[in-house]
Amino acid sequence: MKSEPSAPPAAPFAPLVEDLLAALPEGRVLLDPDVIAGLSHDEAEWAPVGRAAAVVRALTTEDVRSTVEVCLRHRAPVIARGAGTGLSGGANAVDGCVVVSLDRMTDIVEIDPLERLAVVGPGVVNDDLRAAVAEHGLWYPPDPASSPWSTIGGNVATNAGGLCCVKYGVTRDYVLELEMVTGTAEVVRLGRRTAKGVAGYDLAGLVVGSEGTLGIVTEVTVRLRPLPGPAVTVAGFFSDVVTAGEAVRAVGAAGITPAALELVDRHCLRAVDEWKNMGLSLEADVVLLARLDDPGETAERMADQVVACFQDAGATWAERSTDPEEAEALFAARRLAYPAVGRLGPVLTEDVCVPREHIPAMLGRIDEIGRRHDVTIANIAHAGDGNLHPLLLTEHGDDAARGRAQLAFEEILDAALALGGTVTGEHGVGLLKAGGLTRELDPAVLALHRAVKSALDPAWLLNPGKIFAPPPDVPAIPHRSGGAA
Amino acid sequence: MKSEPSAPPAAPFAPLVEDLLAALPEGRVLLDPDVIAGLSHDEAEWAPVGRAAAVVRALTTEDVRSTVEVCLRHRAPVIARGAGTGLSGGANAVDGCVVVSLDRMTDIVEIDPLERLAVVGPGVVNDDLRAAVAEHGLWYPPDPASSPWSTIGGNVATNAGGLCCVKYGVTRDYVLELEMVTGTAEVVRLGRRTAKGVAGYDLAGLVVGSEGTLGIVTEVTVRLRPLPGPAVTVAGFFSDVVTAGEAVRAVGAAGITPAALELVDRHCLRAVDEWKNMGLSLEADVVLLARLDDPGETAERMADQVVACFQDAGATWAERSTDPEEAEALFAARRLAYPAVGRLGPVLTEDVCVPREHIPAMLGRIDEIGRRHDVTIANIAHAGDGNLHPLLLTEHGDDAARGRAQLAFEEILDAALALGGTVTGEHGVGLLKAGGLTRELDPAVLALHRAVKSALDPAWLLNPGKIFAPPPDVPAIPHRSGGAA
Repeated sequence: MKSEPSAPPAAPFAPLVEDLLAALPEGRVLLDPDVIAGLSHDEAEWAPVGRAAAVVRALTTEDVRSTVEVCLRHRAPVIARGAGTGLSGGANAVDGCVVVSLDRMTDIVEIDPLERLAVVGPGVVNDDLRAAVAEHGLWYPPDPASSPWSTIGGNVATNAGGLCCVKYGVTRDYVLELEMVTGTAEVVRLGRRTAKGVAGYDLAGLVVGSEGTLGIVTEVTVRLRPLPGPAVTVAGFFSDVVTAGEAVRAVGAAGITPAALELVDRHCLRAVDEWKNMGLSLEADVVLLARLDDPGETAERMADQVVACFQDAGATWAERSTDPEEAEALFAARRLAYPAVGRLGPVLTEDVCVPREHIPAMLGRIDEIGRRHDVTIANIAHAGDGNLHPLLLTEHGDDAARGRAQLAFEEILDAALALGGTVTGEHGVGLLKAGGLTRELDPAVLALHRAVKSALDPAWLLNPGKIFAPPPDVPAIPHRSGGAA
Repeated sequence: MKSEPSAPPAAPFAPLVEDLLAALPEGRVLLDPDVIAGLSHDEAEWAPVGRAAAVVRALTTEDVRSTVEVCLRHRAPVIARGAGTGLSGGANAVDGCVVVSLDRMTDIVEIDPLERLAVVGPGVVNDDLRAAVAEHGLWYPPDPASSPWSTIGGNVATNAGGLCCVKYGVTRDYVLELEMVTGTAEVVRLGRRTAKGVAGYDLAGLVVGSEGTLGIVTEVTVRLRPLPGPAVTVAGFFSDVVTAGEAVRAVGAAGITPAALELVDRHCLRAVDEWKNMGLSLEADVVLLARLDDPGETAERMADQVVACFQDAGATWAERSTDPEEAEALFAARRLAYPAVGRLGPVLTEDVCVPREHIPAMLGRIDEIGRRHDVTIANIAHAGDGNLHPLLLTEHGDDAARGRAQLAFEEILDAALALGGTVTGEHGVGLLKAGGLTRELDPAVLALHRAVKSALDPAWLLNPGKIFAPPPDVPAIPHRSGGAA
């Protein structure tokens, strides 16, 4: 459960709300306290949530522009959100802000099979985009595990990755053009529709992954690929995470690029099985799943190499799947791991990414940190990328456990940095990793970030306080810390 | 021939030069007027060239940092250059500037086969990087036709493309991390070494393609791929560019992604043959070359499809090459086309890129514009990307022809924009396309560019006047227009 403010909008918001009501078509401005509370946070556990003045449920770019214009006049922060599946608090409200919900901007404007691109509203759900383009034999690769729920706008905000990005890249690799509303309430188009182009700075790429702090994206043109052919799946069972990590490193050292190389542990498999009754085997402590999708005989040859890598590293069992349904069930279980574990209690989700060489060491450090702080840690990972998602599990109402989990969370960030890694591979900094970011980036680099932010959003109106704190000369916007769940 | 100022540095530069000499190790500051003149321009025809105060031939990051520090004190512009193979005037000197030549920073610092990355100095020549990583079975894909001469630093500055980017992407897709000296003389590292990472804005990606206006790159960490297997080549002969363009569109419509799909016309083939005596067939007016490198039987199946696309579009001849040497000779001829044509006289090089759908129309427009202005136009193209390089040929000393070529140049830019294209696909804006850029980008988007430039280089010290003019409140730096050759 998230902390959800339930009081009605405070009186000081009245002039702002009046102007929003005047500027926007009827029905766009939502003032019901429960509705506001429900749309004021993402899925990040224990990230602070402020009290929003209103939610604007935008249907058009002009709705967004008008909202920013009104907020600029009132110096009210603007927080954009999609489906709210974020895991870092990036879409959490700050006090006195207006939340702009883009989840109804679901137009699929265009699918162009020759140019291999699609133009979509930010509220289009990732899986809906995939389904629409698949009808043309095309594929939108970025596949965060949240793809049944998360929106393209949110994927753009966090530069979402997913299972297949070990081979096919992340959201930024697929964004050609953006329409966006700036912090000065202008509508601009950034990027291009052509296959190549270097006319000016890559501002579209800059906006991808900027977590709503540089502009509010109102339309996205994405690059597509042909649908890949059938894939071969390899599964391997391991008795501990470090051995599984060694197998992952061995696949990399063999020069193999799988289309996915995922790790999921017994905690997660059990949680999925208890929820969905999928009849998953719970024999292994850790499972690695590899998918090979190269054409012709190549995939089968590579699959045999992956089996050998798993066995040589010490798998208790490793085989090519001969049953496509079974293979699909294993990947489905991987995708369901996060919500399944989330059903059991509050979860702090890590997103560290380390060089491949250090995957075994990092998995070992996570295990050790969990034991030392008496925190149960479930593991899922885009292991082939070194992008690990240890899930720190607690129980509702156990404040001591929460404290221990938060200490372990920060220690895992530091361990990743010590191994040359990053505090966030794909979820974004949001609020939960803002401290980690200051440990990852040099002050001079953080100063460049603030300069870019000031350049594109001079009033620091857009999602202030996310990623990094505003500089001292920008008036601080107070956060109301969320209570314990 | 370029216009090369030959007068010695003017007296007003003396205090700047004195401080450079004091700040840098012996031998780094070059003052010989002929040396300065030779390092004051790239290969762009008729782009204005100013008179530099000095050249600093940097050997270390600290050399670059010291140079920027001195220049900041004197408010002297700093122009970074690599091999000077640019085609837009991006590395041309402006009056009173210091040229920082990075061509001696040629260290290959690290090659990591497991992470598939290499760390190199900006002066490493593209082909030298490829050769070094090939020893580890690895491949650096971006392959501008200038790869035997151009440097990685220059490739980063222009976000260079090349033949294989139709399948494998451009320089930005391969840059993981950059070390750079900012316009405030700080050394920063941007980006990351991990496979994924979203800790902060993608400032490394922003710097790629910024043509030396946001920082001077002193080290580059590039992503590598495994070396591709053997490729199959298809050649097709066509009697005109529009028919060849239709064949290119047909390949795209068939859903085929070749590893290269190049166009080269008879003008270019003849120029190469006259230079290198390669015994090239000159039967065709236009040749298309496709390379297919998918594993196993797939490449051969795709090659047959490409042959069919060429034939259906109206090729006079199309076949899979059965002779690898012959296939390599055709690609070598393609790569040599630009310097071969350049031997014949001054060449204005276009770099427009249009959506695939409009490739035939754009090739037709180029032909028509050439005829109307009485300008001979040779064509090379990364046709599969829609990235066309019509070469506008003139003769030395023919001012009337120069005037007609410059008119045709601008009309081709406008024709590309009218078809939804861009004025530059991979060469950069530099000076030659600064006018085109203002026609391509909205004023609001240009204002965002200037804001980003001001944020990262507050003194507008780095390569001022390239891409766009400084805003009025930045003191203008006069250009000395180059005379006719």
